[in-house]
Parts: sequence; C-alpha cells; structure tokens
Amino acid sequence: MKNIKVRCPATVANLVCGFDILGMALNEPCDIMQLKLLSEPKVVIRNKDEFNLPTDPEKNVAGVVLLSIMEKMNNTIGFEVEIEKHIKPGSGIGSSAASAAGAAVAANYLLGNIFSSDEVVQFAMNGEKLASGVKHADNIAPCILGGVSLIRSIHPLDIIAIPSPDLYVTVVHPQIEVRTSDARQILRKQVLLKDAIRQWGNIAGLVTGFLKNDHSLIGRSLEDVIIEPVRSILIPGFNEIKTNCKEAGALGGGISGSGPSIFMLSSSEKAAKATEQVMKEVYDRTGIAYNTYVTTINKKGVEIVSDE
Amino acid sequence: MKNIKVRCPATVANLVCGFDILGMALNEPCDIMQLKLLSEPKVVIRNKDEFNLPTDPEKNVAGVVLLSIMEKMNNTIGFEVEIEKHIKPGSGIGSSAASAAGAAVAANYLLGNIFSSDEVVQFAMNGEKLASGVKHADNIAPCILGGVSLIRSIHPLDIIAIPSPDLYVTVVHPQIEVRTSDARQILRKQVLLKDAIRQWGNIAGLVTGFLKNDHSLIGRSLEDVIIEPVRSILIPGFNEIKTNCKEAGALGGGISGSGPSIFMLSSSEKAAKATEQVMKEVYDRTGIAYNTYVTTINKKGVEIVSDE
Repeated sequence: MKNIKVRCPATVANLVCGFDILGMALNEPCDIMQLKLLSEPKVVIRNKDEFNLPTDPEKNVAGVVLLSIMEKMNNTIGFEVEIEKHIKPGSGIGSSAASAAGAAVAANYLLGNIFSSDEVVQFAMNGEKLASGVKHADNIAPCILGGVSLIRSIHPLDIIAIPSPDLYVTVVHPQIEVRTSDARQILRKQVLLKDAIRQWGNIAGLVTGFLKNDHSLIGRSLEDVIIEPVRSILIPGFNEIKTNCKEAGALGGGISGSGPSIFMLSSSEKAAKATEQVMKEVYDRTGIAYNTYVTTINKKGVEIVSDE
Repeated sequence: MKNIKVRCPATVANLVCGFDILGMALNEPCDIMQLKLLSEPKVVIRNKDEFNLPTDPEKNVAGVVLLSIMEKMNNTIGFEVEIEKHIKPGSGIGSSAASAAGAAVAANYLLGNIFSSDEVVQFAMNGEKLASGVKHADNIAPCILGGVSLIRSIHPLDIIAIPSPDLYVTVVHPQIEVRTSDARQILRKQVLLKDAIRQWGNIAGLVTGFLKNDHSLIGRSLEDVIIEPVRSILIPGFNEIKTNCKEAGALGGGISGSGPSIFMLSSSEKAAKATEQVMKEVYDRTGIAYNTYVTTINKKGVEIVSDE
C-alpha cells in the first residue's frame, strides 16, 4: 500500500499576548513521519529516535489521532507510522502538536483528502488532549496551515490564517522541565479588567502589525501583563534574556507556549543571531544545558516530502 | 483674525468586543464648530443649539480643551468658539468627543498645525476627562483621524489607524439616560480568564476582519462576553433588537460606547435600512422616543469646511 513521508514543523503558541488564540509555525526544528495505510483496523507505531515515547497507540499522541480517524472510517482501515522526532518532547515548541498534526494530515492524504482542513484540525486536537489534557489548537492550527493562525473560537472551531511578514525567529530551549499542566495550574482564574483591556490592546496591535507588516508595532505589542508575569517565574534567566535580546536588536518575544523555550522575533538575520548570542551567554553563565535555533516563519505547515 | 469652520463626526466607541481600545467615526450625525483666534488670553463660547450646555469654558468640553491649548501657548492667545451641536449629549455616539476633537483640531489649524496628531489627541482628551472623569481616546481618536482607530495604549499614547471596509452603520438612540460614569461603575473589576480569552479571540478576529475586508469574520467577531451582558441591562429592548437586526441581515453590533445608543454594521444599504426598520418597530412598541441614523463609516475625521 501507499507510503507517505511528511515534515511537521515546530510551533510557537500564544505569541506573548495571544494566550490560547495565536500560534506560529517555524522552519526549524521539525519532525519527520512516515505513514502507511493498512487494510486491517490497527495502529502500529515505530519510534526512530531516542525519546522513548510510548508505542501503545492509546498512549501515543500520533496514535490517538490515527485511532480517531480509523474509528471515523468505521474501522475499515489501519495505519503504520514511523516517527523520527527532532522536536524535543516538553520543549514548549509544539512537539506533541507536530506528531498529532503530522499524523492527521498524512492520514487524510492517504485517504484521498476526504476531510476538510477543520476536520483535520479536530482529529489532531485529540492528540493535544492526550498530551496536555486540553483540546487546544494554538499549536495544531499553525502546524497544519503554516504561518500565523488565529483561533478565534474552539466551540465552534473558527481558525483564521493571518498573513505574516518575513520575520526571523530565535528560540532557546533551556533543558528544564515545565509541565503544561503545571504551567496552566499556576494561572489565576480571574484577571483584572484593566489588565485584560491592556492585553486586548496588545493583541489587536500584534495582529494589525502582522497584517500591515509593521515591525515596530509588532515589537510594541509583544507585551503580556497577564500570563508572563506568572509563568516566567518557572523559567530561570527569563527577564534577563528578554531585556538583553531587545537591547541586541530583537523586536520582542517571550515564553513559547507554556515554556520552557523562549522565542524572539527579529527583522534581520543579523539581529536574530545577536539574539541567539545573548541567549547563549545567559545560559552558559547559569550552567543550564540548552539548544538554540535561528529560523524563519514556516509558511507551508505540514508538508509532504515523498509519496511512494 | 482668521475664522474656521469644522465638521466633527459622531463616533462609536468599543465596537462590541474592543472595550476602551476601538472606535469608529460615522458620517452622520455631526457637529459644526466655528473657531476664531483671539489676541487676548480668554475663551468665549457661544452655543447655537437647544442643548443648554455650559458657556463657562471650565465647565464646557470644548472650553477645557481650548484652555489647555491656550496654556500651552503661554496664554499669548485666546479663542472664540461657536458650537452647533447635532449629536445629542448623552446619546453614546461621542457627543463630547466631537466637541473636544473639533476644538483641538480647529485650534491647531489656526495656530499653523504646530502640534502633532498625538498632541492634538492629548489636548482633546482633556475634554473627555471633564465629560466622563476618564481620559479615554476611543471616541477622540476616530473623531480626529476618521475610520477605525485602535488605541493600543493610553500611557504611552499609541494610536493605530485600521483600514476599514465600506460598511453601512445603523444607529438607534433611545431617549433614555445612561450616564457614562454609571455605566462604568456597574462593571466588575475582575473578569474570568476564560472570558478574557474569548474576548481577545474576538478582538483579534474583528481587527483581522477589518484589515482583510472579511465581512463574515467581522460579524462572527462582534461578540462581547464581558461588558455587554452587564451594560445591556440598562438599555430596554437591547436583546430583542440585536437578535432581530441580525435576522434582518445586519452583520452584528451592540452598545455604542456606554450606551444608550445601539449600532449595527451591514454590508449593504438594503440590510442597513431593514435593520433601521427593526429598531423602529421595537421602540415604537415599547413607546420609548428614539432617533435612528443610517450612515457609513467616516474616513476623514474632523474636516475643515471653510476657512476665511
């Protein structure tokens, strides 16, 4: 039967002021997945990396997505999947979303693209439910669609593609553990109306900045008075990195998803590399192991690299 | 000395989900103001309407704006102003903002446009402070600039013009009194994070809808889960009007500013007029006196109509 190979990009959710509603796809890092259609109703998972993720489909992010598609097809088919993960689990740049989105897009392709883009997002959200307990789409949507996605609403699902300028993205992943569920739990359930107003001014500013290609406005709008002050406590060196990166020429940035990765946007490759240098200096000094990436916004989303 | 006549548009603040950060200018109704530069440091006010507004400059919205400009000019000049108000005070469509913005723009013009657009907004905000106790700019900014304005931040002032599609606007002003200060007082100081998230999804959607000329997205985003449920209690017939207008073809709408006026956006003049009919029916039935307007978005802001 047919065998397909897809490239699944890392993603940055929230984009500072857009908690739970904005996300952006990156060109690096990315996972590679191979998917084969089976004539029996079963899901077989093989991991080709060192992360030791579960191969039981009910405990695997890609697995639950494929099981939900299999069920939708009245268990007339099955899937064999091989996952080569380069996006570290727990890094905060959409590792689980890449598996979930990749599985959903690849399965749909093998089935002749019978499902709409919204349905593919819905299938993939089953993976996020397994990974974090919440059916959110702020990594899934940009991973599937590329670019910047606005998730205006989850019920009903309303995803809007936001054309985004050609920005550089610098990411640092300090190798500490921040569990998405913990990062959610420390948030207060109530916020001050005046803070909410400031936040929605920034969100409107950020979206307008993307749509008008106004880098200065994007920079000014990358401010979060609600989530970041609470969550940044979990990330050592956060404030220093943010301040120093902006001094080094970055437009602005903040926590990627629920962390621990930190991302910064820049107008030029030079500024993006100077930003990377600042990130390295801080974590070299504190002795925390880390990875960095200097990349650009991925405009394609999950991409088919071969189809045999 | 020079005599200038300006046209000052009515404005709709908040635009449903954009409490305190969005505003839009209308082509109808509008005030007419005539301003003359004096060589003595005094402000003389003449009202050419039936509203009996104060002529003591310290108690008059246009007056305090002109006094603040006079002070900035080291009291070397003064102003004589004649106000012909067509925007009813207390209607919720920016009556005080029209006086404040008109005075600031006209005075700046007479002084050779020595102040920047941000400075003109700052002067005009002194009038809003007198009128409502709060220095807000969500009526002032669109009144001066035209179109849709985003006030990303007040401190520091950051106003962004949002290009807006050619939409029709229907407004009904039920002749009841809702004081801006009362309408502010009934709001809770805290909001649920989940409501704030829903609200900022809608704000991002609305702004994207304006920028992409996506009328359906504008309609879906005109939802307010925080302010409207509280404030609409003060406006009889609100829910019925909102539901019936949408059934009649309006994209959506809600309370204009802090009320009592209600506005609706439509894609066509036909839908805007059907919307007006619905508004009339509801208030005819309840016996509340009202005015209606069917108009379009004003793209020019305060406009000089003659200069002698």
